[in-house]
Amino acid sequence: MKVIIIGAVAAGSKAAAKLKRLKPDWDVIIYTADKNVSYSECGLPYYIAGSFKDAEKLVIRTPQDFKKQGINVYIQHKVEEIHPDNKEIYVKNLLTDEIFTDNYDKLIISTGASPYIPNVNGSHLNNVFTLRTLEDGIAIKNAVLQNKKAVILGCGYIGIEMLEAFVKQGLKVNVIQRSNLVMSVFDDDIAEIIQKYVIQKNLEQVKIINNDNILSIEGKDNVEFVITENGRKIETDILLFSVGIRPNVQLAVDAGIELGQTGAIKVNSRMETNIKDIFACGDCVEKHHIVADSPCWLPLGSTANKEGRCCAINVAGGNDEFEGVLGSAVTRYFDFTMSMTGLTEKQAKQYGFEPVSVTVRKNDKAGYMPDVESIIIKLTADKKTQRILGAQGIGQGDVDKRINTLTGALLSKMTIKEFFGNDITYSPPFSTSIDPMLTAAQNLMTKLNLS
Amino acid sequence: MKVIIIGAVAAGSKAAAKLKRLKPDWDVIIYTADKNVSYSECGLPYYIAGSFKDAEKLVIRTPQDFKKQGINVYIQHKVEEIHPDNKEIYVKNLLTDEIFTDNYDKLIISTGASPYIPNVNGSHLNNVFTLRTLEDGIAIKNAVLQNKKAVILGCGYIGIEMLEAFVKQGLKVNVIQRSNLVMSVFDDDIAEIIQKYVIQKNLEQVKIINNDNILSIEGKDNVEFVITENGRKIETDILLFSVGIRPNVQLAVDAGIELGQTGAIKVNSRMETNIKDIFACGDCVEKHHIVADSPCWLPLGSTANKEGRCCAINVAGGNDEFEGVLGSAVTRYFDFTMSMTGLTEKQAKQYGFEPVSVTVRKNDKAGYMPDVESIIIKLTADKKTQRILGAQGIGQGDVDKRINTLTGALLSKMTIKEFFGNDITYSPPFSTSIDPMLTAAQNLMTKLNLS
Repeated sequence: MKVIIIGAVAAGSKAAAKLKRLKPDWDVIIYTADKNVSYSECGLPYYIAGSFKDAEKLVIRTPQDFKKQGINVYIQHKVEEIHPDNKEIYVKNLLTDEIFTDNYDKLIISTGASPYIPNVNGSHLNNVFTLRTLEDGIAIKNAVLQNKKAVILGCGYIGIEMLEAFVKQGLKVNVIQRSNLVMSVFDDDIAEIIQKYVIQKNLEQVKIINNDNILSIEGKDNVEFVITENGRKIETDILLFSVGIRPNVQLAVDAGIELGQTGAIKVNSRMETNIKDIFACGDCVEKHHIVADSPCWLPLGSTANKEGRCCAINVAGGNDEFEGVLGSAVTRYFDFTMSMTGLTEKQAKQYGFEPVSVTVRKNDKAGYMPDVESIIIKLTADKKTQRILGAQGIGQGDVDKRINTLTGALLSKMTIKEFFGNDITYSPPFSTSIDPMLTAAQNLMTKLNLS
Repeated sequence: MKVIIIGAVAAGSKAAAKLKRLKPDWDVIIYTADKNVSYSECGLPYYIAGSFKDAEKLVIRTPQDFKKQGINVYIQHKVEEIHPDNKEIYVKNLLTDEIFTDNYDKLIISTGASPYIPNVNGSHLNNVFTLRTLEDGIAIKNAVLQNKKAVILGCGYIGIEMLEAFVKQGLKVNVIQRSNLVMSVFDDDIAEIIQKYVIQKNLEQVKIINNDNILSIEGKDNVEFVITENGRKIETDILLFSVGIRPNVQLAVDAGIELGQTGAIKVNSRMETNIKDIFACGDCVEKHHIVADSPCWLPLGSTANKEGRCCAINVAGGNDEFEGVLGSAVTRYFDFTMSMTGLTEKQAKQYGFEPVSVTVRKNDKAGYMPDVESIIIKLTADKKTQRILGAQGIGQGDVDKRINTLTGALLSKMTIKEFFGNDITYSPPFSTSIDPMLTAAQNLMTKLNLS
């Protein structure tokens, strides 16, 4: 049996390694257009920030590591066509431009996602970046070390992590955003608090420009300034687009593989596409949102890993299912953590729930402990069923822990009252005697007349 | 209506405050033999350690605060007898020795627990302590600041927290324990790692003496040395007994109130005792262990708070239920966290399960992050049902968070496979792409032939 895997950052490399462990005598081959395989994309902002020096630390497995395991990796090899009828693929060697064919018994598509690049003049100039691959990261870091000013367009997860990186490296940064709030994945009331924190944190180095967009990028070889829709002219040495990513699906579409309503590849819980013997996993596939019981596209490294594992088990003839995601995510801006799980209030409305929320501000540990910090938790439930729908947590204290106490409850579709029975660890250096998440639950029960 | 509450540290003070909010025109009266009400017992070791200066910070509500809310508090008033037939209590004013009677419509017993004091000669000497009340804490801190050497008998939660406090205050400490492991509430393999850490952490200040016990305490006015069963003579300025606590039930027993099999007061999920109109909550009552579906006695501040709240709602005529506990707990020794939830392997056996466990050692965040630390997770499931039974986590990294990702799963009695579907937040500063708890779950599924 011969299994070909297309793309191998998180999901593909996990699938390859797991599959080879399950089936040591099968042929497992990876083709990727990328120069690298199996690395932590999520770690790139911290590399650029200077948290560690060597980009190689982001590499989990090299092609040589795979080779040792008996897996052949062809980097800079782009799969251009899939022909399911005769189980053939066309591959282009990007170094030689040679095109050749290969055959599979089973195929795994893990082509990932690509950053969206707005269609503006001048995006070809030097020092205009998106951040996705290891090469992107290295190029950006080199530019950062030689320059003084940057513009970031868009301030979601990648935008805010790169803002921290640029600030840490001493750059002056203009953030341009089309809305008037950073981190707009959160509810507006929460995003407003985040935005306030960002503005007051590095007042001298950071400027946030709301309700604007880049009209054109100007410069000779390198970007020198950008012109915005509102007529601003902003000088800069570096421009980073962080306005979202799109799943890489064209190869699949051309082969007749069905997409879901989100525009990502549709798979069942076994990670099978609509075409026999073609599986897909990672950022290129649509996911099932467990809370909303609906399709969604939340491309995250942790999910990609699980999907790669599930995919490998089923390719090997086993029977594994990946049930979906809860929408759990976390990031930080310096010492300020932003985390969520489940649905925000605005998402909940979109999915047809009748969300009721409370927001509590509370100490993250006993008030008399020297390193106590404040955190804010917004907890949302459905009015009709009293089911918990999700939570958002922000602040300088230990937020992430609280969000993760809720994930099990979301997974098992608990009501707010059932969750209030949760027994969360307590000791003064770690929590308050009633954990902030339970205080939020208590307040929400009161609001819903449940106590 | 007149409600009398006996004892008011955590559960009693919570019950009083909640009840008065629910029923502002009811008479709510607190009697306590203690000199203080409503304070954080759990914070005492950190006060003694010098984490903060003012013991008043541990006080949540003073008698004056209660008075403002319309609740009368009688400190240093010991309730000596309860007569359920005519709903009468006998109260002794400890300052005047005067005894008087009072009447209740409903009674809440929250008499807490007391430290066990071994029956050895010399325990009356000065600077021989147990730690329970605010006064204990203040007395110990005064002694610590004036002395150089301490002996601690027993090294469970209180023992290890006080060891940190004593070490931080510069004392040389001999820890004597009857077993050969500290923190024996954990499984032996985990406790061994804790013990190793304790020994290597403060080699010069700390000595652990295994398999021994105190035979007698010698000195004129103050303790000067202890003699152990194995014939050691250990000089010391301070002796702390931390060999467990016992529920304060004598008052209840004398009134005909039934105890459970653990020796604590038996209550139903509404916090009602067997006698009409007498409720009980906090450390004096038996709890229901949700995982074991059995009675247990786990006296913790977080549980006491919830029970006090539930008790107040039902006393007020409402209908609330406290379902029980999971056995979640956490403490630390310097930067080393120790946490658990559910059943340990040895407990699981006692309760008739067939436990299967795995132990994983993993980074608490991405390996390339500068502050990465190692943690150890031991995860236990039942072989027959594949239900998760519990987890223990220790290490210098972020352990507590992982333990709390499991509590929701224990509450809803998930199998290990169901839990593996949990979507835990990931970002390099916060976790590994597969969270250590999920790695443990994965390994346990493999061990149980589930994947």
